[in-house]
Amino acid sequence: MTKLYGALEGGGTKFVCAVGSSPEHILEEVRFPTTTPAETISRAVAFFQKFKLTAIGLAPFGPVDLDPASLAYGSITGTPKPGWSNTAILGEFRKVLDIPAVFDTDVNASAFGEWYWVPTNKALESLVYFTIGTGIGSGNIVNGQLIHGLTHPEAGHMRLPHDHKKDPFPGICPFHGDCFEGMASGPALARHWRMPAELLPDDHPAWDLEATYIATALANTIYMLSPQRIVLGGGVMQRLLLLPLIRRKVREILNDYIQSPVFSGTLEEYIVTPALGKRSGILGAMALAKNIKNSS
Amino acid sequence: MTKLYGALEGGGTKFVCAVGSSPEHILEEVRFPTTTPAETISRAVAFFQKFKLTAIGLAPFGPVDLDPASLAYGSITGTPKPGWSNTAILGEFRKVLDIPAVFDTDVNASAFGEWYWVPTNKALESLVYFTIGTGIGSGNIVNGQLIHGLTHPEAGHMRLPHDHKKDPFPGICPFHGDCFEGMASGPALARHWRMPAELLPDDHPAWDLEATYIATALANTIYMLSPQRIVLGGGVMQRLLLLPLIRRKVREILNDYIQSPVFSGTLEEYIVTPALGKRSGILGAMALAKNIKNSS
Repeated sequence: MTKLYGALEGGGTKFVCAVGSSPEHILEEVRFPTTTPAETISRAVAFFQKFKLTAIGLAPFGPVDLDPASLAYGSITGTPKPGWSNTAILGEFRKVLDIPAVFDTDVNASAFGEWYWVPTNKALESLVYFTIGTGIGSGNIVNGQLIHGLTHPEAGHMRLPHDHKKDPFPGICPFHGDCFEGMASGPALARHWRMPAELLPDDHPAWDLEATYIATALANTIYMLSPQRIVLGGGVMQRLLLLPLIRRKVREILNDYIQSPVFSGTLEEYIVTPALGKRSGILGAMALAKNIKNSS
Repeated sequence: MTKLYGALEGGGTKFVCAVGSSPEHILEEVRFPTTTPAETISRAVAFFQKFKLTAIGLAPFGPVDLDPASLAYGSITGTPKPGWSNTAILGEFRKVLDIPAVFDTDVNASAFGEWYWVPTNKALESLVYFTIGTGIGSGNIVNGQLIHGLTHPEAGHMRLPHDHKKDPFPGICPFHGDCFEGMASGPALARHWRMPAELLPDDHPAWDLEATYIATALANTIYMLSPQRIVLGGGVMQRLLLLPLIRRKVREILNDYIQSPVFSGTLEEYIVTPALGKRSGILGAMALAKNIKNSS
């Protein structure tokens, strides 16, 4: 019998729960709004209880505690989302489901999903996945494993050059003002230009600035991590003009410094959109479950 | 009989060659100036030929080609150092020494040395080593392995915020002007303040700016890689006032965003100087040799 895996992608506005064995074999999937922690989590738990699962992957919105030695391990820690600070996720599942469980950030799950399920990605040793939407974050695969380290990457808070003459907007990050997320997230665009990002016309100067911030962050990522591929997901990347503009600006910023055949081309295979589309996160949570030792 | 390993640290001004089995057991070590590639390399080869080695670790100055599939693998590629562009290093050794050989950047070797030989570092999964001197570079250990990826990290070329009002210096990087290395390397300090960095007095405003650039780069490193420890080596770090200033500024820049017990303290165990002092590179090259599969 095919083994079944549970996958949870817990976002700030909705939770997605799926059971299956691969992207092509999803037995059942539900999605429901993120309300109170008690209601939302018990709904998810009840869904998974219907199945005989081999393992489960839990990927909620962050910040989360990923340190197995910590008392708060498996929890959402301090979040601006009302009522959700210090919410045990893994703990609630453990009370009811006696199966191997893996807990990670939603963006780490997306990175892992893009790597695990996409053969041309899995052939690589390293891949960075950025989500550029309501927030900005990255999941980094190095030598075939996710980076955790001290906590987990928080690439959205990287500091970037900011030419205040060209762009006087001070940024919206409550911690850092004009960090990457503070300048380039969807809400930052909306506040800056006083309209929802999706209403900004293609010829609005917002997009050239946006591409510059993203391309600078990618250049820094290339300098720091030297990844073999970069995947750009998230709502802001739905704007189709961005991707080619970002590729061009990354090359301009690197200015032929990195000597690799990759950078002599147009970067069309180097900086890409998610092969799994909007399903990187939920399928990544499934991949994490399947990747637990002895569970695949 | 104890196995013997060869180690080469090939710098732009001098080459160091050592043979031994551990930091405490160095059989012989020589150092000589970096002259022409032919003379320098044959001198190194002749030294190692005297011994019966199990393996050798070669760590020359960069940029180097680390892609085993490339024709230029094991070479120094395009370097400003006259005569040294496209110099095969590994190839010259292979002609003469029929032993397992590993080739990596000098800064990767330093990172690996600090991790491999220092028990409190080896207990960690991740560590970033920065050298801040004539150039700036980093070696990154993640999940117990060096990051290579597409080429190798080039963290010195990271783009950082640059407040031109506070610091109008345009930077000296021939590729990027005011990147991290362009603003904060030893030669950048010398050009900026028109005197060698070591002559700048402790109360010179140069040091506060220097600490700001370094601390910002470290904050970006923490956001991107979430390392469990950061080691700062290189000539500029000989200035003792820098380390505590950098630690303080890193905390200011992060502004309590990263929730880890590490960041509630003074960072004295988190941002450190090399435990191996100036010997990280040569001992790292030895560690790389010892780490070759089946050679320890």
